[in-house]
Amino acid sequence: MREVAVIGIGQTKIGEHWDQSLRDLAGQAIQAAMMDAQREEADALYIGNMMSSTANHQQHLGAYIADWAGLKNIEAYRIESACSSGAASFRTGFMAVASGEVECAVVVGVEKMTDSPAGEITAALATAAEADWEVDQGVSFVALNALVMKRYMHEHGWKHQDFAQFSINAHANARNNPFARFHDTLSLEAYEKGPMIADPINVFDASPMGDGAAAVVLVPADSIHASSRPRIVIAGSGSATDTIAAHDRRAPTWLSAAEISVKHAYSQAGIGPGDIDLFEYHDAFTIMATLSLEACGLYERGQGPRAALDNDISLTGKIPVATMGGLKARGHPVGATGLYQVVEVVQQLRGEAGENQVADAKIGMTQNIGGSGSNIVTHILRRV
Amino acid sequence: MREVAVIGIGQTKIGEHWDQSLRDLAGQAIQAAMMDAQREEADALYIGNMMSSTANHQQHLGAYIADWAGLKNIEAYRIESACSSGAASFRTGFMAVASGEVECAVVVGVEKMTDSPAGEITAALATAAEADWEVDQGVSFVALNALVMKRYMHEHGWKHQDFAQFSINAHANARNNPFARFHDTLSLEAYEKGPMIADPINVFDASPMGDGAAAVVLVPADSIHASSRPRIVIAGSGSATDTIAAHDRRAPTWLSAAEISVKHAYSQAGIGPGDIDLFEYHDAFTIMATLSLEACGLYERGQGPRAALDNDISLTGKIPVATMGGLKARGHPVGATGLYQVVEVVQQLRGEAGENQVADAKIGMTQNIGGSGSNIVTHILRRV
Repeated sequence: MREVAVIGIGQTKIGEHWDQSLRDLAGQAIQAAMMDAQREEADALYIGNMMSSTANHQQHLGAYIADWAGLKNIEAYRIESACSSGAASFRTGFMAVASGEVECAVVVGVEKMTDSPAGEITAALATAAEADWEVDQGVSFVALNALVMKRYMHEHGWKHQDFAQFSINAHANARNNPFARFHDTLSLEAYEKGPMIADPINVFDASPMGDGAAAVVLVPADSIHASSRPRIVIAGSGSATDTIAAHDRRAPTWLSAAEISVKHAYSQAGIGPGDIDLFEYHDAFTIMATLSLEACGLYERGQGPRAALDNDISLTGKIPVATMGGLKARGHPVGATGLYQVVEVVQQLRGEAGENQVADAKIGMTQNIGGSGSNIVTHILRRV
Repeated sequence: MREVAVIGIGQTKIGEHWDQSLRDLAGQAIQAAMMDAQREEADALYIGNMMSSTANHQQHLGAYIADWAGLKNIEAYRIESACSSGAASFRTGFMAVASGEVECAVVVGVEKMTDSPAGEITAALATAAEADWEVDQGVSFVALNALVMKRYMHEHGWKHQDFAQFSINAHANARNNPFARFHDTLSLEAYEKGPMIADPINVFDASPMGDGAAAVVLVPADSIHASSRPRIVIAGSGSATDTIAAHDRRAPTWLSAAEISVKHAYSQAGIGPGDIDLFEYHDAFTIMATLSLEACGLYERGQGPRAALDNDISLTGKIPVATMGGLKARGHPVGATGLYQVVEVVQQLRGEAGENQVADAKIGMTQNIGGSGSNIVTHILRRV
């Protein structure tokens, strides 16, 4: 299997882009990534997107976006796996280039959520859960996560405020990220007083939706000419599923799919949890941040909140996370999130993260979670 | 790039399956393919589906179907490119196994269309066209094809009845296919008197929707043990796009995306149009059958209807097509169609096509078309 390198990155600001369509956003991210890669052509375009059929009344994004972005006639199609659509499309691009079938792949994640009434978006997000045995019983996606968080707090004896630093850290890091949705700091007091959504998840435990797109350009590593710019390769890639319904799992408070996908990625990269310099995790909710840290072997089972309490997660801590704001403060345009994570890791590994630079970052990990832990895709990138 | 073999096939009958859900259908096709392959486990599941978000209020089919099919914890996600979703997912599986990242991939195409009111399905199908400049102007998907057909008849001087044999042949072949939706013959007189849908397309120029699923199992060719069963490999795979809006094309009556994808597939397989023993083409409408034959180099530009008039397309003709009924009579459950095509070619190459067997078939081709020609995926399979 030939090694694959990320040679271009691009992203739009996340926000409520009333004056831009789905393809405007995707086109901007693609153009930025192509310019960054100094390429004018590509052989394939893989698109991560969850909800264009309902939120934008448009499917067939392959032809729709390739055409708009000037990538005429190339292979192009969409990959969907709920909130992990972005990472699944990145993995598709990785395998396409690794196989030898594609020489230059562009992967873009895009979502345009704010045009639709909030109720429609809540319903669209719920299609990531089990239609018959979860959604039709009236449970929303936040409520599913709240059930998991409540159970976790009960099993391991943590209090709500023990999770605070996950969100405070994310907001602190987003301040220096011009592409982030939020730029305001979060205090412990504000966190504790946040309006409740689904007990115990309040508004500051949850990530905001938004419109946005992020893109990368992939080529075989051995095709890159020598240059002064650091070379970033995909060292590990893993993808796994769990039961779609949370209640079907032996332990809803343990992310089996994360454990399986990260083990594959560690093994492929020839590293272990101690070698990770930064981790762009899937902090859609503070409970998911916690469970992800545990499943990746960074904390013992039931001890994830220690990362927050000890502030190991800051830019100078043991395991920096959400270095550009994470889902919590950079924002979570669902199908695009997996690509934002990759773009941010590349920024860090190149030394282009500005005020938020993690010192001498050589190995970065991303983890993108679809559903209530039912589809999890992990990547490890390395500066070589 | 390592060679990839198809070692298992499975399919459900196409029809109105009121008593079966989307995952029932997918699960049956997967189980049949796994049993045919004599495998109990797989490493990845790729799913071709277009409209589950609207027709079934369920996305995230990766976890949804893997879980149901007993393929616990494996990688699983959905690929969407309108009516070519099936072939795009097949290509994803091909590249995944070819890359060395996946050892055994299951690919399933599934669509459940008949639970929803016809108007909703027409609207869902329209999301394959351009939302702003085609759909919002009121043009349905049939109407788009009618515009292309009318133009083609005008440019090249063909009459409506010149296309009849495409449909008559499809219905004749479907009679012996137990999985086909229709089993009745079609006469020239009936074809000519068919109720008009969008002039010049009448009901007998158009393929029926339906519920159905088809699946294959893919492994590296060099991993197959010697057996008495013929070995079927993927000799060529090509995928290309065109502008999503038909009016943006220089010539709406020429399938550029088909030409590009088939050229790539021919080149990879080291063959030309004259080497094809049978062709499972995308006869969603008789005009698409015509244009596909031309773009693949089987007929001169403007001469596609000769295939029908000379009946070159029968099971004993120069280029047998739709050998198990095609989209026209086997049926067209959109996201599943690309997999039905592959399954049928494998049946032919193995010599398992019964009454419809094409004598000594060694090389078979499939072509799956998304949108009005905007996304076209071609595969060549070979018995080795």
